Amino acid sequence: MDYIRQIEIKPGIETDQLIRMMDHCGFGARRLSEAADIYEEMLSEDYTKFLTLAGAMVPAGMRNIVSDLIRRGHVDILVTTGANMVHDIIECFGHHWVGDSEACDADLREEGVSRIYDVYVGDEEFVQFEELLQNILPDETGPFSGSEFLRILGSKLEDKKSILRSASDCDVPVFCPAISDSMIGLQAWLRRQVNKLSVDAFSDIDELVEICYNVDKAGILMIGGGVPKNFALQSMLVTPKSFDLAIQLTADHPEWGGLSGATLSEAVSWGKISSQAKQSVVYGDATITFPLLVSATLTRLQKRM
Amino acid sequence: MDYIRQIEIKPGIETDQLIRMMDHCGFGARRLSEAADIYEEMLSEDYTKFLTLAGAMVPAGMRNIVSDLIRRGHVDILVTTGANMVHDIIECFGHHWVGDSEACDADLREEGVSRIYDVYVGDEEFVQFEELLQNILPDETGPFSGSEFLRILGSKLEDKKSILRSASDCDVPVFCPAISDSMIGLQAWLRRQVNKLSVDAFSDIDELVEICYNVDKAGILMIGGGVPKNFALQSMLVTPKSFDLAIQLTADHPEWGGLSGATLSEAVSWGKISSQAKQSVVYGDATITFPLLVSATLTRLQKRM
Amino acid sequence: MDYIRQIEIKPGIETDQLIRMMDHCGFGARRLSEAADIYEEMLSEDYTKFLTLAGAMVPAGMRNIVSDLIRRGHVDILVTTGANMVHDIIECFGHHWVGDSEACDADLREEGVSRIYDVYVGDEEFVQFEELLQNILPDETGPFSGSEFLRILGSKLEDKKSILRSASDCDVPVFCPAISDSMIGLQAWLRRQVNKLSVDAFSDIDELVEICYNVDKAGILMIGGGVPKNFALQSMLVTPKSFDLAIQLTADHPEWGGLSGATLSEAVSWGKISSQAKQSVVYGDATITFPLLVSATLTRLQKRM
Amino acid sequence: MDYIRQIEIKPGIETDQLIRMMDHCGFGARRLSEAADIYEEMLSEDYTKFLTLAGAMVPAGMRNIVSDLIRRGHVDILVTTGANMVHDIIECFGHHWVGDSEACDADLREEGVSRIYDVYVGDEEFVQFEELLQNILPDETGPFSGSEFLRILGSKLEDKKSILRSASDCDVPVFCPAISDSMIGLQAWLRRQVNKLSVDAFSDIDELVEICYNVDKAGILMIGGGVPKNFALQSMLVTPKSFDLAIQLTADHPEWGGLSGATLSEAVSWGKISSQAKQSVVYGDATITFPLLVSATLTRLQKRM
Repeated sequence: MDYIRQIEIKPGIETDQLIRMMDHCGFGARRLSEAADIYEEMLSEDYTKFLTLAGAMVPAGMRNIVSDLIRRGHVDILVTTGANMVHDIIECFGHHWVGDSEACDADLREEGVSRIYDVYVGDEEFVQFEELLQNILPDETGPFSGSEFLRILGSKLEDKKSILRSASDCDVPVFCPAISDSMIGLQAWLRRQVNKLSVDAFSDIDELVEICYNVDKAGILMIGGGVPKNFALQSMLVTPKSFDLAIQLTADHPEWGGLSGATLSEAVSWGKISSQAKQSVVYGDATITFPLLVSATLTRLQKRM
Repeated sequence: MDYIRQIEIKPGIETDQLIRMMDHCGFGARRLSEAADIYEEMLSEDYTKFLTLAGAMVPAGMRNIVSDLIRRGHVDILVTTGANMVHDIIECFGHHWVGDSEACDADLREEGVSRIYDVYVGDEEFVQFEELLQNILPDETGPFSGSEFLRILGSKLEDKKSILRSASDCDVPVFCPAISDSMIGLQAWLRRQVNKLSVDAFSDIDELVEICYNVDKAGILMIGGGVPKNFALQSMLVTPKSFDLAIQLTADHPEWGGLSGATLSEAVSWGKISSQAKQSVVYGDATITFPLLVSATLTRLQKRM
Repeated sequence: MDYIRQIEIKPGIETDQLIRMMDHCGFGARRLSEAADIYEEMLSEDYTKFLTLAGAMVPAGMRNIVSDLIRRGHVDILVTTGANMVHDIIECFGHHWVGDSEACDADLREEGVSRIYDVYVGDEEFVQFEELLQNILPDETGPFSGSEFLRILGSKLEDKKSILRSASDCDVPVFCPAISDSMIGLQAWLRRQVNKLSVDAFSDIDELVEICYNVDKAGILMIGGGVPKNFALQSMLVTPKSFDLAIQLTADHPEWGGLSGATLSEAVSWGKISSQAKQSVVYGDATITFPLLVSATLTRLQKRM
Repeated sequence: MDYIRQIEIKPGIETDQLIRMMDHCGFGARRLSEAADIYEEMLSEDYTKFLTLAGAMVPAGMRNIVSDLIRRGHVDILVTTGANMVHDIIECFGHHWVGDSEACDADLREEGVSRIYDVYVGDEEFVQFEELLQNILPDETGPFSGSEFLRILGSKLEDKKSILRSASDCDVPVFCPAISDSMIGLQAWLRRQVNKLSVDAFSDIDELVEICYNVDKAGILMIGGGVPKNFALQSMLVTPKSFDLAIQLTADHPEWGGLSGATLSEAVSWGKISSQAKQSVVYGDATITFPLLVSATLTRLQKRM
């Protein structure tokens, strides 16, 4: 049995040096270190790589990490909430703002500011978003598949840092099962006053299940839980495959019984994750753990080259 | 200023007596008591009543509370995850089982058991679910709106305790923006191997926005967060209306920045909830707080009659 | 195997009826129901009954539940934080106030108000507390044992609803291992400017270990974690005994690794709790779960009579 | 107003580079970055520096970070739980072990292993701990002050990596208000069967209040909450001073109302923290955030030299 090695901090260490020292610690430190080992294996070997994205990651500053992972070839399938794609589009022409989580919300409304914890979005950003979206929504009425619809939007964005644009450039399908639950959905509703633009709600399953049937080995990194987590995991249910590597970065706990906080072990009972899978759940704020994980892993990949 | 009155417990008290004593307490007790006051107003006066349902509430035993609320006329719009509707259908013919949150998940898979924290579902239930669903899926190919699709399923269920059947009986629209993210979605995918059954992803917005335009006063009870919370709240964004009463029962915290844990005050900055709204967030396990809240409120309504 | 029975709510039900329906539910509902079964056994059979009290339970309105349990003979040993005893003494002559968790704390300080989440205490209460305490502090200098010191304070309080007075009246020892970490400690420091009042930090262990050696069967109800939880559990370490019944009501989670959130199963590995013990951890806000648990249990005890 | 700058990760970056990029992010990332700015100011300017330590930080591998901070002169006062000092002493001669949070606790007891989440301690470590402690407990009976008692223990430890030894070497007082609530307390109890070793429970207040009276500017870093947080903060109550800089790394949330999760703003209403103080609360697992914070800050200090 291995013993706990007390961390020793020296000035100037790299993130990966810190993560490696966490290897023989307890609690979250060890989980994060195990996650880095799993992610290194996922990105350096022949895995089909899923990334799921919930929580307000883009407004919080995590957008370019995602688009960079896509452009480096480290994402094969992205499953996301609609909101993250809305804010990805806003970042193409405008900004989110450093705000105050304690501000008076009635005053903010008066000033035309919407709050996402300690991040602000101005009404003017939403006006511009509306204009841009009406320009890039497809002229054809469809029905489109969800991923086709998002690929079209992405292909029309000019900002190469955009997640949607990067995914479109790299032929990475983006699945957003609750696309109607976002301002993209509301803009589609507006367009539908004019012509009957439509997205087929079930078509993404066709596409994702086919991908799952054809994977050899599969790995998944989940940021948060929610629909993205469930949709990616359930896609394995109708195939003989399951995930071989799985990481979740989350603030949800198993004790409440919900899917977002469910352990990855629970997913083994469903057959979504292999009983031999390597897995790690890192509890905490993903705006801290996600950059750390990616930073350590990219460092390792570079050293392997 | 009012002072804290220490609770005095006597044997045999009713749930509403307990909730009323919590009125002058601190922390969660006071929040729950305020939630009961708000819910009493919502159900006894002329509000359009939204209920949103996330988390595994049906497997945990909360299904008949929801269907009973619908049949009593206390729900005008239901927004839900797909999973809760899957498990609602399973309860029409079978059971969920009292399980063990510490069981070995690899063994459970061997035995054909899927685990939801401390609740089990057997593979046989899913086989029967598949048979039933293939029978009640519409023969027409659509495209259906999401709520129309769920109304058809509900109308074909025989169990009057079913949430979907109750909603269908009572003309309560059920919105499930991420319907593809559920076993109903997977069954639709199976059917689509035969004929091109489809649901239009954006059609629910048409219907829900129209409802929101026409509300006089609106109230919302949210169980958990996720897509149901966001979809119900965002529907107000494109109308001049906003929610006047709002309750959330949740285990998520605001400090992580995600929508599920966002305060109802944050929704004021977006214009989703009125700055004059009465609101209460009760933190904890909704399998405890939801039955308590409903029990106290129904008691009050009966006494008003 | 037992199946999940969906809860059915009727107006006017008693708290115990609700808790009993939770028996065949999942998640927190079942845990609470199991806790009630355990607490009923603990209070109705021949167990030595420990109660531990952390978190600001007294300011939040839970004080009289505790003192009532003591007077009914349902507590044999109380382990508490110092703060709860400070606020118990304040309630003897004054009040805590219904406050606002969103208030401006700098303004509150200007106004002489100290905030405990959404409960306020006025500077005048602390002035009166100081006067009262200087009157009831023992004239002798000691060294006292901790429980002896608190018994003296309790015996001099006039309010029979007081926890300290009730414990003194009923010969229930009160242990507060971190007594210096409270305003009682600060008042003792003031007195020590005059005479060398002292409490022997280790004497409580002598007394508690002797109690533990002599228990036949032992049960424990823990409100929150912290020092009270640890001190009560560790007292079994040096004896051949261990707890046979254990309940924890807590908002802490095991995943962070701390003692407060540690599972009761973890305590089995230490020998603090018997491997055959019946135990239940109920997650959530104890200002909701504690009154519910006590209410249901007192109802059951009355029906047994 | 400043805008959110999306993080860009390059391989090989230092921890401080990452933390600096978090400066213009949202949520936990920004809080951590602000904490680093505060800690840099605290360590580089003329502040009296408090460190409080709760949670099982030593078993999890954080011990040498603490002792190194002490030896570098970055801690003037340490307030800790007893357990962390017990495990600090164990590390002087033995080890904690990399364990499994899912292990069967009854089996572990059979094997003589005590579990702290995913860290193990063997019975043999506790036997050796007992022998060592009986050797280093003072022969005099006291009464000692708490900090004097711990200074004696520390001075007799040979391991210079020890927190207690480092504090003793550097004349840093260690306060442990609940010293009886630990295995050090149990060993003192054993000794007391022979001679009346005693610690005066209130003496630490004398010492700490005097320190607080004499501070010019004061800063505090709190790992977790509990007694260490409260004791350090309350010490300012009886002085005209208050903390000017404050950081808390915690997994507790304010919504439950307890002191451990209370915001630092709440402490402003009490006068413990100055209303002009710079403060930051970082939510998450301190085994991740504490090493990160220290690593970034030490890097900055080195660059200033």
